[in-house]
Amino acid sequence: MADPFVVVFAVFPDLTQLDFTGPYEVLSRLPKSRTLVASEPGGLITSERGLAFETTRLAEIDRCDLICVPGGPGVTPAMGEPMFLSELKRLAHGAQYVTSVCTGALLLGAAGLLQGKRATTHWAYRDILPLFGAVRTDARVVRDGKVFTGGGVTAGVDFGLTVAAEVAGDAVAQSIQLMIEYDPSPPFDAGSPDTAPPEVLERFNAALADNLSARREAAARAAARLGLS
Amino acid sequence: MADPFVVVFAVFPDLTQLDFTGPYEVLSRLPKSRTLVASEPGGLITSERGLAFETTRLAEIDRCDLICVPGGPGVTPAMGEPMFLSELKRLAHGAQYVTSVCTGALLLGAAGLLQGKRATTHWAYRDILPLFGAVRTDARVVRDGKVFTGGGVTAGVDFGLTVAAEVAGDAVAQSIQLMIEYDPSPPFDAGSPDTAPPEVLERFNAALADNLSARREAAARAAARLGLS
Repeated sequence: MADPFVVVFAVFPDLTQLDFTGPYEVLSRLPKSRTLVASEPGGLITSERGLAFETTRLAEIDRCDLICVPGGPGVTPAMGEPMFLSELKRLAHGAQYVTSVCTGALLLGAAGLLQGKRATTHWAYRDILPLFGAVRTDARVVRDGKVFTGGGVTAGVDFGLTVAAEVAGDAVAQSIQLMIEYDPSPPFDAGSPDTAPPEVLERFNAALADNLSARREAAARAAARLGLS
Repeated sequence: MADPFVVVFAVFPDLTQLDFTGPYEVLSRLPKSRTLVASEPGGLITSERGLAFETTRLAEIDRCDLICVPGGPGVTPAMGEPMFLSELKRLAHGAQYVTSVCTGALLLGAAGLLQGKRATTHWAYRDILPLFGAVRTDARVVRDGKVFTGGGVTAGVDFGLTVAAEVAGDAVAQSIQLMIEYDPSPPFDAGSPDTAPPEVLERFNAALADNLSARREAAARAAARLGLS
């Protein structure tokens, strides 16, 4: 094992930073690994909340062992970016693990990588998955063969530890969990639509409506380009 | 309330990115707020795992309502940086909330902001807190007056939601929790020294020893400069 295990985070403008940083913090601690953060144009990429960070170019990466695609508002335009999607496809074909967190699953779908696969995504967007031929699965982390998908945003930490255990064994994953003191204790039980107070869920869904239909339309167009509809 | 609620993340080289991104993702979603990410020199700051991101200069920020200091390996040198510490002190004095995540608490301590305060930090470094006159408190999130401290790395999400509820009310915090799907489900129960498998904890502590003593020495020097020893 002279070669490092190469992890690539494939990012894009307007991503949700925590979708990416959760698993980045976990997977970049894998022994004998190398982690790259890459976008289609390279250079500074600005997240949804305004944080700008450096990336390399996807096209400059020959191959990787694991590709991880985070989500965020920028998923909607990115589903219509053929160069970005073709880089995802190229790297995914050579990888041992093809993965996403949050609405990054919609980008795997738009790249044609979820056909026939069980997958999850952020709870609010799960019913888009079947447009890409995926089998919607309501869980925080879902594995189907080489494809691992995580739920919304903070699910990236659970996802990262699950993948770390698969790649390097339980003891390595547990040691990373201890390092990042992942012993969660949420002050409220509002993190899923099943447990959130009804009025919080209702306001959330009302605020989401436009965004959700724009995303569904972009997904339908991407699915049509794949010949799936 | 015409003025926005200003949140400042005070960062430094070699910080742990997730210490910062967890609460950043939560607090930047507060209504009528503005979030700044600032370092002493400004410009690109590189995290412990290699992610480089843009910051403004602390000296350019007049005041803030909330200051949050994350942790990471860079805390050890930063405890000896008088210009950085004096910026923390200046902004903290005008703020309604003075906060930290992970070993960021040691920087609050080195800036003289924890004297007589109950506080927490990453589990492995908690016994350094009393050097700064703080009262070590073994909890994931601790409040003492205007000072809120969080435990290691991922505690920043619990911390962020606790602070969000304090600043903007429970419904706002719950809506953010639903948005970031914070319904944690760790694949192992290894996130605290009380629950990690003994052999994982033992290896972890062995690997930590040098780092811990360097950090304790830097803290003792900072405490001496404050006249605390």
